Amino acid sequence: MRIDGERLWDDLMQLAQITDPGKPYTRRSFSPLFDQGRLWLRERFEAAGLATRIDAAGNLIGRRAGADLQARTILIGSHSDTVPSGGRFDGPAGLLAALEIARAFSEQGIVLRHALEVVDFLAEEPSEFGLSCIGSRGMAGVLDDTMLAYRDPSGETLAQAIDRVGGDVAALGRAKRDDIAAFFELHIEQGLVLQDGGLDAGIVTGLVGITRIEIVFRGSADHAGTTPMHLRRDAFTPAAKTAVLADRMAREFTARKGGLFVATTGVVSVKPGASNVVPQEARIVIDARAENRAMMDEFLALLDRETANYAKESRTERAVFARLSDTTPTPCDPALRALLRDSAAALGFSSTDIASGAGHDAAFVAKIAPAAMLFIPCRDGKSHSPEEWAEPDAIATGAAIIAEAVLRVDRGGASAAE
Amino acid sequence: MRIDGERLWDDLMQLAQITDPGKPYTRRSFSPLFDQGRLWLRERFEAAGLATRIDAAGNLIGRRAGADLQARTILIGSHSDTVPSGGRFDGPAGLLAALEIARAFSEQGIVLRHALEVVDFLAEEPSEFGLSCIGSRGMAGVLDDTMLAYRDPSGETLAQAIDRVGGDVAALGRAKRDDIAAFFELHIEQGLVLQDGGLDAGIVTGLVGITRIEIVFRGSADHAGTTPMHLRRDAFTPAAKTAVLADRMAREFTARKGGLFVATTGVVSVKPGASNVVPQEARIVIDARAENRAMMDEFLALLDRETANYAKESRTERAVFARLSDTTPTPCDPALRALLRDSAAALGFSSTDIASGAGHDAAFVAKIAPAAMLFIPCRDGKSHSPEEWAEPDAIATGAAIIAEAVLRVDRGGASAAE
Repeated sequence: MRIDGERLWDDLMQLAQITDPGKPYTRRSFSPLFDQGRLWLRERFEAAGLATRIDAAGNLIGRRAGADLQARTILIGSHSDTVPSGGRFDGPAGLLAALEIARAFSEQGIVLRHALEVVDFLAEEPSEFGLSCIGSRGMAGVLDDTMLAYRDPSGETLAQAIDRVGGDVAALGRAKRDDIAAFFELHIEQGLVLQDGGLDAGIVTGLVGITRIEIVFRGSADHAGTTPMHLRRDAFTPAAKTAVLADRMAREFTARKGGLFVATTGVVSVKPGASNVVPQEARIVIDARAENRAMMDEFLALLDRETANYAKESRTERAVFARLSDTTPTPCDPALRALLRDSAAALGFSSTDIASGAGHDAAFVAKIAPAAMLFIPCRDGKSHSPEEWAEPDAIATGAAIIAEAVLRVDRGGASAAE
Repeated sequence: MRIDGERLWDDLMQLAQITDPGKPYTRRSFSPLFDQGRLWLRERFEAAGLATRIDAAGNLIGRRAGADLQARTILIGSHSDTVPSGGRFDGPAGLLAALEIARAFSEQGIVLRHALEVVDFLAEEPSEFGLSCIGSRGMAGVLDDTMLAYRDPSGETLAQAIDRVGGDVAALGRAKRDDIAAFFELHIEQGLVLQDGGLDAGIVTGLVGITRIEIVFRGSADHAGTTPMHLRRDAFTPAAKTAVLADRMAREFTARKGGLFVATTGVVSVKPGASNVVPQEARIVIDARAENRAMMDEFLALLDRETANYAKESRTERAVFARLSDTTPTPCDPALRALLRDSAAALGFSSTDIASGAGHDAAFVAKIAPAAMLFIPCRDGKSHSPEEWAEPDAIATGAAIIAEAVLRVDRGGASAAE
């Protein structure tokens, strides 16, 4: 079968144009731009002959029926939302590759025994609700009531937001799937291994566990001039100490060579936020990732102990110390990994095993079905920034490998698949 | 003469109602609420028989003519703007006390030789332009072109904003005054000295110097999962280290007993501000205050050296290290101080000398005229917060002392005044 790399590239560039013009590339989940992107996607899905729907968890799904009505579904796809000032490939490359694969099968008259579905998972990136992978959590049946009650800064609940984009939280159980034979996701590597090695593809061995911790210190909004240092209850100083500690600990843990460990303080806010008022409240969100769960547990215990100390030193209250989300490392399905490796080799492409430092929807789909991921090279490992770049040929190569793997699953190539 | 404390209190409570309802008490300079407060003030000024105008620097001024057209002007007042989530007394107490004094003189048929002006200085609190005391700077002739070009987050320049509230930046020179015989400002102490000592009034000896430093670090917006710690250019870590350092240095300087020294990091922002993106840019504003200029210079030199080191360690650029504002300590006029002390004693009120840890418009007026301040007690030293409180009697007492001092200046009681 043949993948039309040019058409796939054109799709990518068209979707990229749906962005906040002052802040490319930004298409935040639940925003009007996200809706606009979804409208465009829906039209493309339908033009490719896919029967299109939004499931109860807000995932956009295009379905191509299979010849055997008893056979389960092969699912391929990724996500269309972005971080603020993100790139054009993280998500859309895998999503539009999946669309191109389904389109190519139909055009080339390739009949599959299995139904094939292309999915745009809702809100893979951390949304304004502080939660990521919302759609794939819903599909895996692990989007719980606590999460659904999260509110964004405007006060809307996540449940309301999912309904607003076409989901149906009242019937959320229907989004949970038990009919997936295999799931494949193509994604840019967002790292340097493939570029440095001159390799075409990375067969993902597994995904890191990601823990996101929200910490809020509360003190007192006193006058910055007339409140002597020893009488202050400054909420930002302990927050700043916490960020410095998280960075230092991540470097120490990395030095132990116990596998990948990173920690980032990417969300910071201070109230009331005036230069002449001692901060009354400071909120930070720390994103920590580990291949090794024991290391993560050690990190969390240290963070818990030290932030309690910092609160004491600054005479503030540690009002919140909460895990916004917490996933354990997820291995990819061994049979599907072998199948991707064989498909790449059969098409003449080079590949290597690689761990994913990023979280992906595949980690949630893995809870309900065999799941695997294929990484393609991206320039200088840049991601989540406007400079993110993948070569048109690299994307077409990845799509061809996944198309081959889908064909092999359909022909019963992966014993795990049926 | 008699001050109507109840009427003064009613005025205060009425002005306090003009606030962001979700964030009391907030009436930010240049905001629609600020305009609404000014409209209310203007009506109150005119009802008190004051000829009301807005000067070229955007100060609202109500004038009561004097009997001697050759005599200079006695100026009294404060400001009506607030910090976000501030109080009802910081500014309005002195402003509405001044209005009550002018009103009482008129009602009681007290003819003054000097003209008397009541002033609401524009934007005493640090505005969205990162600058404080905008109106009094204008009146002192020190609001320069660099400051006028400052932009708020929406992109408006300070010059445009001053014109928008009724000023006339093209004719800013006209706001500079050379006709002020004396300036008095009543203000809540925003500290604990008067409450602890059971005293009625504080005669301000002088005001601390305030330096506000903006620091911006710039790095790279990389993926928080796939960018190992040693390859990051995280802009927030050096900013957090800087805030921790500023707090520690202020405590060390205080321990030296070289006079008041405080430092506050009250403004913090991070871009792009998502939990899974390494911060590309972090901005903080540090507010430092000292009675001793040499100590401030030492603080600034240390901060300069260490922030340059932090940038180096984090592989980021220290893109901005700028003094947004920088004032030296200002002594109050000795003759007016003596006059306030004598007025308090003559009316049977207790007083003490006190240094001001806060900046006030009086520091700028002191550049062009004899200026003095009177502090009144406030509960638990709380200020710049909704809990800010001054007793109605304490405000009336302060107003009576200033009214007496105005009468004494008018009768030639302060040799410095004519």
